[in-house]
Amino acid sequence: MTSNSDNQPANAFYAQSGGVTAVINVSAAGLIETARKHPDKIGKVYAGKNGIIGALKEELIDTSLESDTDIAALKHTPSGAFGSCRYKLRGIDESRAEYERLIEVFKAHNIRYFFYNGGGDSMDTAHKVSQVGETLDYKIQCIGIPKTVDNDLPITDNCPGFGSVAKYIAVSIREAGFDVASMAATSTKVFVLEVMGRHAGWIAAAGGIAAENEGDAPHIILFPEIAFDEKAFLQRVEYSVAKYGYCAIVVSEGLKNSEGKFMADAGTIDAFGHSQLGGVAPVIAQLVKNKLGYKYHWAVSDYLQRAARHIASKTDVDQAYAMGVAAMNFALEGKDAVMPAIRRDSNNPYSWSVAEANLADVANVEKMLPAGYITEDGFGITEKAREYLQPLIQGEDYPPYKNGMPDYVVLKNILVEKKLKVNFEI
Amino acid sequence: MTSNSDNQPANAFYAQSGGVTAVINVSAAGLIETARKHPDKIGKVYAGKNGIIGALKEELIDTSLESDTDIAALKHTPSGAFGSCRYKLRGIDESRAEYERLIEVFKAHNIRYFFYNGGGDSMDTAHKVSQVGETLDYKIQCIGIPKTVDNDLPITDNCPGFGSVAKYIAVSIREAGFDVASMAATSTKVFVLEVMGRHAGWIAAAGGIAAENEGDAPHIILFPEIAFDEKAFLQRVEYSVAKYGYCAIVVSEGLKNSEGKFMADAGTIDAFGHSQLGGVAPVIAQLVKNKLGYKYHWAVSDYLQRAARHIASKTDVDQAYAMGVAAMNFALEGKDAVMPAIRRDSNNPYSWSVAEANLADVANVEKMLPAGYITEDGFGITEKAREYLQPLIQGEDYPPYKNGMPDYVVLKNILVEKKLKVNFEI
Repeated sequence: MTSNSDNQPANAFYAQSGGVTAVINVSAAGLIETARKHPDKIGKVYAGKNGIIGALKEELIDTSLESDTDIAALKHTPSGAFGSCRYKLRGIDESRAEYERLIEVFKAHNIRYFFYNGGGDSMDTAHKVSQVGETLDYKIQCIGIPKTVDNDLPITDNCPGFGSVAKYIAVSIREAGFDVASMAATSTKVFVLEVMGRHAGWIAAAGGIAAENEGDAPHIILFPEIAFDEKAFLQRVEYSVAKYGYCAIVVSEGLKNSEGKFMADAGTIDAFGHSQLGGVAPVIAQLVKNKLGYKYHWAVSDYLQRAARHIASKTDVDQAYAMGVAAMNFALEGKDAVMPAIRRDSNNPYSWSVAEANLADVANVEKMLPAGYITEDGFGITEKAREYLQPLIQGEDYPPYKNGMPDYVVLKNILVEKKLKVNFEI
Repeated sequence: MTSNSDNQPANAFYAQSGGVTAVINVSAAGLIETARKHPDKIGKVYAGKNGIIGALKEELIDTSLESDTDIAALKHTPSGAFGSCRYKLRGIDESRAEYERLIEVFKAHNIRYFFYNGGGDSMDTAHKVSQVGETLDYKIQCIGIPKTVDNDLPITDNCPGFGSVAKYIAVSIREAGFDVASMAATSTKVFVLEVMGRHAGWIAAAGGIAAENEGDAPHIILFPEIAFDEKAFLQRVEYSVAKYGYCAIVVSEGLKNSEGKFMADAGTIDAFGHSQLGGVAPVIAQLVKNKLGYKYHWAVSDYLQRAARHIASKTDVDQAYAMGVAAMNFALEGKDAVMPAIRRDSNNPYSWSVAEANLADVANVEKMLPAGYITEDGFGITEKAREYLQPLIQGEDYPPYKNGMPDYVVLKNILVEKKLKVNFEI
């Protein structure tokens, strides 16, 4: 293993990137706990305060100052315990100063391992850091750790974070479906739940898990992959109300009309001047009211769905932990420019193992929902989709509670003293 | 006990009323399980299909055809298992035909016990049925069972259904708060969660339980009791972002402006022509964006909050069950025109017992959030509020899971044969 002049083992840097999840901290715990078992090989694990920005600004959190108990508590704490960021490093030519700054900071703190916990963009960044290190003749092992509720990374069978959102959405539409069914005789007949997934319908599809038997909610799923067909949709709503007494709908925030425009914009841009998504549920609900006259209710889960550690999937928690452990093990084995991935070994019973992917193969490839996962009418999921999705929501992994509330940890997050004289402006 | 000519014990009628909750079925289970212990005194328990409408239309569900296992499963199933309705019987003079129809149906099916599980209006109806029975010389014992997420019934310390919504909202804003805190450095700085409670801020107040330490989410609560003060609100948002890096807000759907108009209408009436509430969260979020420029996210829980049996409060479940048991016991003791209530015997440690209230004292009295529960600045809850609220969310009572999903029961709901020749039009 690489060591500095004092013969101290080299340090590691870990950063959380992009939208956080219910289980990204579980990967952090897996990584840090594994490092702590190898003090001869891994010195300190530094975490970036607010992700990669922490490295650029030399704001490094010394995780060795966190107790074993607090690191273990990350396993039941949602969000990004060290802070995350939305900050994309571009190509090496364009962002050379930033890459060089990273190497400079790593060098100053004897960091020889770079772990980046994120989605496709982050895997690309990790890959580039590896390349820049080589160019600058600074040996640094770069390991990606998969994380994204969007479930859109290639090679890995699924992405940590997705299973828990999937479970939350499936549970929520089942519960709301039961509620609406009770009320439908004299009151609400249509319920619309808006879910995340701007580009791909993985989360919307997960809602379909709730419909196990004929007539179960959701009766309609509106995918971002399928252009909204108002006539067919309204017919389906009418059919559902006539046959089952009510209609429960899951709609993706990324639903588009036949011209490829976001439906969320259609109804709200005048009143609000929205520039960010969110708000397709009221548009769909109001359409139903206007055209069919049914009383409606709608919900938008937004961050609740990806932060809902209280109803996380145990499978997801286990896999997120395994990815953190595997990432550190890859580093200990001397690997570079790789990412641990989840391999599905069998479906029934579900079993999985840890595989290895090259960052070069992961970066900038988006895994879309396969066409064969959506029913022909465009409003539901196929058996094939269910076979894929069902195992990912298996098991519950409840956090501990205190005073009736989940007892989530807030780390001390103490920064290491800066060694560089120059501040870096973001 | 009253018996019919065959010396069979008289039957009971049970109906669910108004908006359903995560635990109204728990009260049904308590009532039915208690009745099943007294076959010598209580014949069949009939349930109204879709609430009181089931009685008016003579659509009576024979709960004796449901297995003990399925009745027990009601204890972990949200919504109204027999269907509920929004249908208000008015004064006796105005709605005499309906009251008389009720008595006629009860007489035809030898029903001598009327249980009505609902909020203030339902307690009023139960009271009136008792009076009409007397006038028509038909002996019927009328017992109310408290249920409302709005927590606005008098006499009872709290209402079954509320504790579970309170827990859901407190957990949700804590989780979303952790999420936003992670993202705030470069992305979302303000998060707005809209909650139910059109007239009273009980549910909004419950969000405040999550803020245990300085800086915890939520940083601002917007109550329906406090007219929205834009300037003070924006100042508070700025302060929170400056001091804690982000701002998490809980807003009641019933928030009003200084002219007493619903804020939800202000932003959406032109675009949607809304006639129902819902949608104050985007109005508040957009205001923050326009005036302060912060990136925002917002969520509307809607039915999810009251259907969330997966994170129900154990205290709430226990109390809902006790109310069902007590209601049946009151009937067995020959009582009429009463409602079991929850009495708080001590705060620390929390203990409670079952009390008895007269329907005459409960009907048409709304218990508002005491002024002393809201902090002077109007944006938070006092220690007194916390002392009241905290015990109500204590304990978890997880449903069983199957295939990764909560295993909620759907009853057979088989109707009794009609005995009356005349159909009743609603």
